[in-house]
Amino acid sequence: MAQVAVSKRGITLRIELFTVNDIPMIREGDDLAAIICNNTSLEDGDIVVIASTIVAKAEGRIFSLENIVPGRRAIDIGHRCGRDPAFVQAVLDRSVECLVEAPFILVQLESGQICVNAGIDDSNVEEGLFLDLPEDPDASARRIAADIKKMTGMRVSLVITDTNGRAFRIGQTGIAIGIANIEPVRDWIGESDLFGNRLQITQEAVADEVASAANLLMGEGSGGTPVVIMRGLNIHNTTGSIQQIYRIEEEDIIKKGLKCLQKDS
Amino acid sequence: MAQVAVSKRGITLRIELFTVNDIPMIREGDDLAAIICNNTSLEDGDIVVIASTIVAKAEGRIFSLENIVPGRRAIDIGHRCGRDPAFVQAVLDRSVECLVEAPFILVQLESGQICVNAGIDDSNVEEGLFLDLPEDPDASARRIAADIKKMTGMRVSLVITDTNGRAFRIGQTGIAIGIANIEPVRDWIGESDLFGNRLQITQEAVADEVASAANLLMGEGSGGTPVVIMRGLNIHNTTGSIQQIYRIEEEDIIKKGLKCLQKDS
Repeated sequence: MAQVAVSKRGITLRIELFTVNDIPMIREGDDLAAIICNNTSLEDGDIVVIASTIVAKAEGRIFSLENIVPGRRAIDIGHRCGRDPAFVQAVLDRSVECLVEAPFILVQLESGQICVNAGIDDSNVEEGLFLDLPEDPDASARRIAADIKKMTGMRVSLVITDTNGRAFRIGQTGIAIGIANIEPVRDWIGESDLFGNRLQITQEAVADEVASAANLLMGEGSGGTPVVIMRGLNIHNTTGSIQQIYRIEEEDIIKKGLKCLQKDS
Repeated sequence: MAQVAVSKRGITLRIELFTVNDIPMIREGDDLAAIICNNTSLEDGDIVVIASTIVAKAEGRIFSLENIVPGRRAIDIGHRCGRDPAFVQAVLDRSVECLVEAPFILVQLESGQICVNAGIDDSNVEEGLFLDLPEDPDASARRIAADIKKMTGMRVSLVITDTNGRAFRIGQTGIAIGIANIEPVRDWIGESDLFGNRLQITQEAVADEVASAANLLMGEGSGGTPVVIMRGLNIHNTTGSIQQIYRIEEEDIIKKGLKCLQKDS
C-alpha cells in the first residue's frame, strides 16, 4: 500500500510542481537522466514526471511507413476512418486486439494498455515520421530512476506519461504508462470514515493523478515542457508496476460493450 | 479558450497545492466561503478545490430511505447487485437513463454526468443516511466564488470535485462536477508543434486535471481534507460550465456499447 501524506489537524499538506527547463530536442541515444539532473536540482522523494515522447525519442522509436504493406483489414479500416492504410497496418501490428475500428482506432497493446492508434504519435516528429510509445515503459522508468540515483544519490519516483481520452467526457488528461518507485493505486479499503464506518472499497489511481497534475504544466505544442517535478507527496515505494492498473477482461464491462457493438455491426 | 501558462526558455513554471486545515464537520446552512476564508489566505487567481461532499452537506442534501417505496425494476436490480431496493429506487429517481444495472449501477443524471449510484454517497454521513450530489454544482461553484470575492476581494476559480472510475483502468481519480471562473477544457487546436506542423485536435480536460491533482491531498477517510488550494496556474476565465464536458449521445461510442449489452441481455 502506497504511503500518502494524510492530513492532521493544523498541519498544512503542500505539494509543488515545477518544470525542468532547457530540455534540448531529444535524439536517439540521449541520456535523459543526465539531461534532467543537469537542468534541475532533485531531492529525495521527488516524483520525476516525463512525457513518453522524449523517452521514445531517446530510445530511437521513430519509424516511417515506407516499408509497410497494408493488408486487407488495414485497407478497409483506413477507408472507414480516413487514415493511410499503411498507418493502420502499423497500428494493427502493435496491437493484440482492435476494439474500435472507426471513426477512430482503439486498440489494446501487449502491455494491456488500451489507447487510440496504438499510441503512435505524428506530432512533434519530422514530417513523414512517426513515434512509437517506449517499448516497455516500466523498464524505461526503472532505468531512468536508477540512473538518477547513481548520478545524484537521490531516490526519486518516476512516472512516464501519455494523454488519453475518457469515457463519457470530452478532453484528454495525463495518464501514467510507465512507473518506478511508486504504486499505481492507493488503497483506501478498511480505513474509517468520519463516522467510524469502514469505507467501502476505494482505490485511488495516484500515478494517473500525478500524471494529470504534471500535464497542467507540460503543454502540447512547441512551448511544451516534457519534464515536470512533483515535490512534497510522500509516496515513494520500491514496488509497483503500471500493469496493475489494467482491468482484467472479465471485469471490464466497457470492453464487453465495445465488443458487443463490433458483433452487431 | 483558457489561458494556461506556457513555458518559455529558462522560465520555470511552478504551481503549488496546499490543504485548508481545520474545516469543521459541515452542517446544513454552513457558509463554506466564510469557513474557507477564515482558515486560509487566498490570492487573486487561486483555484479553490472543494470536495462535493461538504458542498452537499452545506446544502442539506442528506436523506434517508424511510419513505421510499421501491418499484418492480428497483427490486429486480437490487437483487441482482445486492443493494437495498429502496436505495436502488433513490438512484433511479435521480437518473434520466440507467446504463449498467449490475454488478454496479451506472446512470446518467439530468446534468449529463454519468456516475455510479447517481453519485449518492453513504460514506462520511451518519449510519442510515445518504448524501446526494449538490443539486446544481455549477451554480454552487459560482455562488461560493462570488461569496469569496465579496469577503476578500479576490477573484478565484472554483472546482467542486467528486471521484470517478475510468474505462479500462482500475482506480478512481478526482473529477470536476461543478466549476466557476475556469473553462473545463483547454483547446490546443491549431497550435504548432515542435516542427511547425499544426497539432491535430487536442483538448486538455484542465478542470478534471485540477481535480485529480487536488485529490492527491484530499484523502477519503477521517483524515481527509475537503478543501485544497491550487496556486500558480494562470487559468482564470469568467466563462465555462461543466456541461461542456459531457459527450453528446451520438459521439459516445462507449455509451452505445453499454446500450448494446443491455439489448443483448
